[in-house]
Amino acid sequence: MGMIRIEPLTKAAFAPFGEVVESEGATPIVINEGFATRLNSVARIDVSAEDGHVNIAIFEAKPRPQPIAITMMERHPLGSQLFMPLQPRNWLVVVCADPADPESFRAFAASGAQGVNYARGTWHFPLLVSAPGERFLVVDRAGAGQNLEEVTLPKPLSLPVFPASDRSSA
Amino acid sequence: MGMIRIEPLTKAAFAPFGEVVESEGATPIVINEGFATRLNSVARIDVSAEDGHVNIAIFEAKPRPQPIAITMMERHPLGSQLFMPLQPRNWLVVVCADPADPESFRAFAASGAQGVNYARGTWHFPLLVSAPGERFLVVDRAGAGQNLEEVTLPKPLSLPVFPASDRSSA
Repeated sequence: MGMIRIEPLTKAAFAPFGEVVESEGATPIVINEGFATRLNSVARIDVSAEDGHVNIAIFEAKPRPQPIAITMMERHPLGSQLFMPLQPRNWLVVVCADPADPESFRAFAASGAQGVNYARGTWHFPLLVSAPGERFLVVDRAGAGQNLEEVTLPKPLSLPVFPASDRSSA
Repeated sequence: MGMIRIEPLTKAAFAPFGEVVESEGATPIVINEGFATRLNSVARIDVSAEDGHVNIAIFEAKPRPQPIAITMMERHPLGSQLFMPLQPRNWLVVVCADPADPESFRAFAASGAQGVNYARGTWHFPLLVSAPGERFLVVDRAGAGQNLEEVTLPKPLSLPVFPASDRSSA
């Protein structure tokens, strides 16, 4: 079974697939008499295709058994989909350019301070978390139209075992 | 100085001011082969006035000195504004129906699992957190038009000192 190497999540590396939602790289604006900083436009929401609108959801996830088998991929042809972790704990992101091309798969280790916003139509694996009960705020699309495609991989791929020491972050 | 009592944040109590963004009360949909639950439509985003669009921001806040003085209020006449905590830590929400009426002020203790979505035009006090470096994902409006009103209170109000034992939540 082919193994996907896990690399750090950075804006540059993730750019072909969407946006990293994080404080780094945004221009801070001091507000609230100095008691807060605002970082604007950390993600671009793209949900207007076929009269779609923004859907705010909460996802609650539990870990899959390791080593994790990547047996399928999914994508949302009508809208972007943003996942923001609600706890400071590392998680994993798996994407690809073409599910039929094993060489196009990428796996990213996201810190608990990093969300991602999958660009419209980006192939991705479902949410991968490292502990039970992890929660994410999700900003995606609701509305008419078929916004989910799923494909089963002809040959499953695998992720390396994610060490416990990497499972929490500041 | 008039004191605002702090009450628990519940959907019913907060309904005149907007929505509580939380898992409770939403209908769970099991997805991802049983490894996740999706709770849809936990907030309604209202940003389309005057051709506005969704803005995704990160706020980073630090605590104000206690007792906290409520000296001003603000509101966004063109859009809703959603705050979701990115750490499991209690925070405070202060709103009012009319800044000129001290009796109309309400203060709510939110758990770290609760966000709020201020309805368009709801008077509120800026972000109140209990520890330095707290982060929130914010979903509000960008676009043309004047979307901020601020008013200074003729007589400041005060919050009771928030005990340290109340500052973290599961």
